[in-house]
Amino acid sequence: MTLALRTLKPKDTEMDIHDYMHTLGRQARAASRRLAAASTGDKNAALLAMAGEIRSRRSELLTANARDLDEARAGGLEAALIDRLILNEKGIEAMAAGLEQIAALPDPVGEITDVKRRPSGIQVGKMRVPLGVIGIIYEARPNVTADAAALCLKSGNAAILRGGKEAIHANRAIAACVRAGLVAAGLPEHAVQVVETTDRAAVGELITMPEFVDVIVPRGGKGLIERIAKDARVPVIKHLDGNCHVYIDDEADPVKVVPIVDNAKTQRYGTCNTAESLLVARDIADLYLPAIGHMLAAKGVEMRCCAESLALLREAGVEAARLAVATEADWREEYLAPIIAVKVVAGIDEAIAHVNAYSSGHTEAIVTENYSHAMRFLREVDSSSVMVNASTRFADGFEYGLGAEIGISTDKIHARGPVGLEGLTSQKWIVFGNGEIRR
Amino acid sequence: MTLALRTLKPKDTEMDIHDYMHTLGRQARAASRRLAAASTGDKNAALLAMAGEIRSRRSELLTANARDLDEARAGGLEAALIDRLILNEKGIEAMAAGLEQIAALPDPVGEITDVKRRPSGIQVGKMRVPLGVIGIIYEARPNVTADAAALCLKSGNAAILRGGKEAIHANRAIAACVRAGLVAAGLPEHAVQVVETTDRAAVGELITMPEFVDVIVPRGGKGLIERIAKDARVPVIKHLDGNCHVYIDDEADPVKVVPIVDNAKTQRYGTCNTAESLLVARDIADLYLPAIGHMLAAKGVEMRCCAESLALLREAGVEAARLAVATEADWREEYLAPIIAVKVVAGIDEAIAHVNAYSSGHTEAIVTENYSHAMRFLREVDSSSVMVNASTRFADGFEYGLGAEIGISTDKIHARGPVGLEGLTSQKWIVFGNGEIRR
Repeated sequence: MTLALRTLKPKDTEMDIHDYMHTLGRQARAASRRLAAASTGDKNAALLAMAGEIRSRRSELLTANARDLDEARAGGLEAALIDRLILNEKGIEAMAAGLEQIAALPDPVGEITDVKRRPSGIQVGKMRVPLGVIGIIYEARPNVTADAAALCLKSGNAAILRGGKEAIHANRAIAACVRAGLVAAGLPEHAVQVVETTDRAAVGELITMPEFVDVIVPRGGKGLIERIAKDARVPVIKHLDGNCHVYIDDEADPVKVVPIVDNAKTQRYGTCNTAESLLVARDIADLYLPAIGHMLAAKGVEMRCCAESLALLREAGVEAARLAVATEADWREEYLAPIIAVKVVAGIDEAIAHVNAYSSGHTEAIVTENYSHAMRFLREVDSSSVMVNASTRFADGFEYGLGAEIGISTDKIHARGPVGLEGLTSQKWIVFGNGEIRR
Repeated sequence: MTLALRTLKPKDTEMDIHDYMHTLGRQARAASRRLAAASTGDKNAALLAMAGEIRSRRSELLTANARDLDEARAGGLEAALIDRLILNEKGIEAMAAGLEQIAALPDPVGEITDVKRRPSGIQVGKMRVPLGVIGIIYEARPNVTADAAALCLKSGNAAILRGGKEAIHANRAIAACVRAGLVAAGLPEHAVQVVETTDRAAVGELITMPEFVDVIVPRGGKGLIERIAKDARVPVIKHLDGNCHVYIDDEADPVKVVPIVDNAKTQRYGTCNTAESLLVARDIADLYLPAIGHMLAAKGVEMRCCAESLALLREAGVEAARLAVATEADWREEYLAPIIAVKVVAGIDEAIAHVNAYSSGHTEAIVTENYSHAMRFLREVDSSSVMVNASTRFADGFEYGLGAEIGISTDKIHARGPVGLEGLTSQKWIVFGNGEIRR
């Protein structure tokens, strides 16, 4: 396992992947100390300088991306992945504008909260601090490089970025802009490092250096994330799948039912906050299912139904080609496609039990006018976002007002749901004393 | 790997450890759903009923403990461990009183905060929720069984408790009290389960069942915790060592210096928040080190010194038998003994750099009257508790006002520092809508 390292050494030299990644780690750790103490002004100046570099090096970025695309096409990469790989003028401007938006967000670092005086005389509170060094592993999407770098920097963390190998030339070019921005603002150039090798062993090293890396954020397919979570020796903020539910309660407001199901399922099929399962209370199933079924069928959505809902939908004359019998697997499936599982449930109890048994813990919504049902659903459903009378599509860092999002966590500790700048920090305890000693 | 299961099956039957632990896991998961929805009143009633059971079954507990002690002495267990194993009348009363104290604490579950209206019309906020199922692995200290059960229950979590094998009889007897309390309050009896086998394979299973266990809290020696962290497939809230520093700044208040060093080092030698390293600014080293050295020597504390501090302490006539030359290893050592490492540093910069290089990230204190030094130390020192003009011994859940403590975390994500009820919960997002859909 040897590779040529353009950045680390000016001349091509051979170096072991282990040594290379540990060098990046050591450099990141050192940079993270300086970043944790950096002023908001310096961090913002670096972000704005990066945006300027990206705009002024537009042609270099396009050339690098063209090289990636040529190689990807020659290698037979599938069309959908090539689509994500493309970096055009518009994409470059969006990248620069994204950096400026992150510069405009409030700095979470240093915030002091909950300071209380204790009987001993000390005052105890909490201070928000960066996590330290964040390793980000993602697919061949060059825009993620700038975005992840900016989120880590603004939250005071050093970053080691490992993007998909198909985007390596664009990633290197973006990394050069990021470095130039850091240096222009007087911040350590190792605050953001892009892994310059495409050797997969680099990922294995990155996730097993607890002395240098504090947390890993994988962004990509479920298989990749599961492998990383399995092998990692550091905490992983991860997002597995999004099997989101909409439950139509027996006291749902008729005006809200169809628009919410429509939006949750059909606004976009490929997002993790799209509804994949619809639960309908038995008492009102015959009232609402026909309208829902006709709407979904008209939009070309296939319904995988329990026996009861299937009978109701057939009776209502919903296009037979859109109806199918659900199997046990359908209750767990994240379709990411125009398909939805449909089940009639006895009421709020069965709805909550079904969600907690089958959901991936991402986002669930209840449509109801009943106060107690709403409050029980909010409290008892064990997912990272739980909603009353709103579309699951709102589960998103921007819609929640985080200003940015590095991902959506389906984990239960640390950050749950959309992760913004605050999710990349933690709180330490601080004590303001006046010479107190413990008795 | 087979064992006799008294609780799981009334008659002794042979069962595979894997199946046994998975059965506990499934039962815990089911119980955790009911616990998450349990009222504060029911949880408190269970805690008070447990306290009552523990008091009324005092003689059973003493008998069980006597059996543990007999077996431990016969097995040649060392005296210090036997000490921790002892459960006497006073210890039983303390256990019952501890349960009552936890019943009196505020319930963290269900707390709704940060609700904000978004431009889309939805109101977004956070709700505090239990983590789910907590696995606690600890040494042969029967009092931990009641304490950990109570903290998990109050925070709405189901618990699987695996105590040291030497305390198995007492743990079983305490588990019976806990179960009786749960049942009396109408809560699921599997809300707290004690692992009834002493087979070490049970630990391996417990830490690799992410489908049933959400977080592991190991309490014990560093070796045990490192092994668990290495092998766990679920997040671990862990406390490794406590190499705590006191830094005497060049603008320290003379009145505060000796009392804080004295208290931080000598109040108790065996606790994790005891100071193990003393840093002194060069400008005032000759002013303060003599008084510190005489005080420590008089209390029998050995000083492992850098060349400069050694010279100053010798010159000041500090008892030579208490002075030694520090090696590199001393800067990292958690002595848990009347020994302290002493180093002269140039000032605040070197102090912060030394702490961040050598500390275990537990607790550090600065003694200073200089505002900017204090604020820099608070911000730049990367430890879970950072203090100005106070003894490191204050780093403790009770002193911080948490009301209880399940441990002190030296991790950086989720909970840092003393972990109380809140550290056993997380926050999910909640959305109050009125039929909003995403545009």
